[in-house]
Amino acid sequence: MSEHFDELWTRLAPVGRNRTTGGYRRYSWGPADTEARSWFTAAARARGLDVAADGNGNLWAWWGEPGGDAVVTGSHLDSVPDGGAYDGPLGIVGALAAVDELRRRGLRPRRPFAVAVFVEEEGARFGVPCLGSRLLTGAITPERAGRLTDADGVTWSAAMEQAGLDPEGMGSDSEILGRIGVFVELHIEQGRALAHTGDPIGVASAVWPHGRWRLDFSGQADHAGTTRTADRSDPMLPFAEAVLAARRAAEEHDALATVGKVRVSPNGTNAVPSRVRAWLDARAADEGALRAVVDSVDAEARRSAAEHGVTVTGFLESKSPLVRFDHSLRDRIAARVGGTGGAVPILTTGAGHDAGVLATAVPTAMLFVRNPTGISHAPQESATAADCRAGVTALADVLADLADAVPEEQA
Amino acid sequence: MSEHFDELWTRLAPVGRNRTTGGYRRYSWGPADTEARSWFTAAARARGLDVAADGNGNLWAWWGEPGGDAVVTGSHLDSVPDGGAYDGPLGIVGALAAVDELRRRGLRPRRPFAVAVFVEEEGARFGVPCLGSRLLTGAITPERAGRLTDADGVTWSAAMEQAGLDPEGMGSDSEILGRIGVFVELHIEQGRALAHTGDPIGVASAVWPHGRWRLDFSGQADHAGTTRTADRSDPMLPFAEAVLAARRAAEEHDALATVGKVRVSPNGTNAVPSRVRAWLDARAADEGALRAVVDSVDAEARRSAAEHGVTVTGFLESKSPLVRFDHSLRDRIAARVGGTGGAVPILTTGAGHDAGVLATAVPTAMLFVRNPTGISHAPQESATAADCRAGVTALADVLADLADAVPEEQA
Repeated sequence: MSEHFDELWTRLAPVGRNRTTGGYRRYSWGPADTEARSWFTAAARARGLDVAADGNGNLWAWWGEPGGDAVVTGSHLDSVPDGGAYDGPLGIVGALAAVDELRRRGLRPRRPFAVAVFVEEEGARFGVPCLGSRLLTGAITPERAGRLTDADGVTWSAAMEQAGLDPEGMGSDSEILGRIGVFVELHIEQGRALAHTGDPIGVASAVWPHGRWRLDFSGQADHAGTTRTADRSDPMLPFAEAVLAARRAAEEHDALATVGKVRVSPNGTNAVPSRVRAWLDARAADEGALRAVVDSVDAEARRSAAEHGVTVTGFLESKSPLVRFDHSLRDRIAARVGGTGGAVPILTTGAGHDAGVLATAVPTAMLFVRNPTGISHAPQESATAADCRAGVTALADVLADLADAVPEEQA
Repeated sequence: MSEHFDELWTRLAPVGRNRTTGGYRRYSWGPADTEARSWFTAAARARGLDVAADGNGNLWAWWGEPGGDAVVTGSHLDSVPDGGAYDGPLGIVGALAAVDELRRRGLRPRRPFAVAVFVEEEGARFGVPCLGSRLLTGAITPERAGRLTDADGVTWSAAMEQAGLDPEGMGSDSEILGRIGVFVELHIEQGRALAHTGDPIGVASAVWPHGRWRLDFSGQADHAGTTRTADRSDPMLPFAEAVLAARRAAEEHDALATVGKVRVSPNGTNAVPSRVRAWLDARAADEGALRAVVDSVDAEARRSAAEHGVTVTGFLESKSPLVRFDHSLRDRIAARVGGTGGAVPILTTGAGHDAGVLATAVPTAMLFVRNPTGISHAPQESATAADCRAGVTALADVLADLADAVPEEQA
């Protein structure tokens, strides 16, 4: 088995990797993303799977005939700016390697079986994460998705069209969604819970409610060398207060709040900015705590903006409610992965995933692979080869169980 | 006279103007800058002036034979990002219009006379302001200037070469510098002092010491949805503290301190940044106050960085000492401009200018034109047409006096 995983991994590894940072820049519909999708299509076809894109651009590789009550596994290939190698690709490479592993065991699923690649999971290019699964489930309308723009003003529709897909086909698809009997996603852990327990594999129980808010601070551009402080409307100051308020609120509510993206206009050394646009990423264990965090940041941004003669406008860019993964599925998987006696850790996560979006429509589950440093969304994100292989074995075990895999001659 | 100014102004106005913001983006050696330089060359030649670039790329338009003890006037054509129309161009258009005005009066200077256009005054592209005048006077070495890079990593030398100039010619030039007997720069005021006094024109007495410091905050990129706050090294937090410290220090020392430019890596919504690079622009009435402001910001940046497990490194990018303009020249000009009895306001400024750099080598002076809003380095920067014409008249009066202009037949 391991050589299949290693070979697949090695082929995908250089795609979209920045030589300077060592991080990945696989942005939806861009050259690296297109190359990664072509790699997947070729690798799946080499395994005898039939690959096709759905109307939203998600890829589906069927092992045998497509059909209802299917077992589906998969993840995504896109990355955040300078992201790590594992977030997403581990679940795709792992799925293909699990197919190889089932074959090595002489098994073939009796239930319909597919590997799925969801587009724009990170939302790095168009701002809304899990866009492919949201479109599929109807969590976002094709009209709104089509109008989303990247930093250069290119719309999602135009980018999709440039990649050779017809944006007219976008939207909720009950036929494709109706085929999914269960969805399982293998993913690198994005914290250090498994590193603390000493286990290579964990099973997810819930995804924290989370969302992205954009804050636009508008002031007055002025000469930094001549405008008295009293005459300024400098949006950088309430922005800075909001950054600090986000950290305070996160600590107060045992939550997470991050300002990781900022755009300053005109962004000149000797110009007081006219505008600072900032994005707040907030996550908490429950909706009440999440609301409290966002309200705290908003209140401090408004207080400080008023003090400095700046206006501030907030926009909700995306919001994901609390997701509890299917309990019976989780327990069935945990029993399978726990294997010969050991209990498997059950984890909550603050990270959004396609599995969390799909959970609104079908039973879903997630397997996590240990991340020794917990670092994620950065070039240093890592997992050992042994743990990745353990992840593939666990995924193959789970898929064999769920898909009622039997020896080839009985299938 | 006024039609000359208006015609020149109208021709230059569209060059490098962004249609969306209405601001100017004339960056040294870029297309808009090249077009503006070509416009100047053509306009000066149409007036019978001989135009040539010096080894540093500054343009010199001589009225008659070049020679020693010359009267030189001029300014710059480059802009900050989304800058206003007047900062720089008023002094160039005004100089050409003053030549027209002297001719209209039937006068011709007996002293050698030139109009100069200095490159990269704003430092918007390569980070060091007044680069052309600094190179000319030896305030920066050609080696250091040549290695300066823009946001895309293009060096000053490479950009100069692409514009058709030989970077080997860069450096202090005692022959050209030695020709300047006196330098006068006409400039829009960048504050509201003249608006308060009600005068269209003022004369400069001093430029505050000022400088630019870069602060690099380095932390650890992480997933914003999974990394506990206690496990983070988020450089956005000490950056925010430094922004607020800069404002506090400016108020405490009656100085100016601005953070107007920031670059965040990787700048993703769901990624804790790995690095925040910020630029501090600081100015004060004396060196002691300037030092105190910068030290305060630096101390707060270090304190907060240590608290958050972030490293911070400071770099001095440029520094200009206090400049006192030549007193006797100032008084001679003030007497001339004050004209028929009124006293002319004498102003200090926090803004750096080529006249301030040249003041280390030759007697220099500046004339300011009223700015009703005080807004500068922004699209809303403005001056009335009447005040601009008053500036041209004042400049022509001063140049006629300094250059010992006499009726054509006596020249």
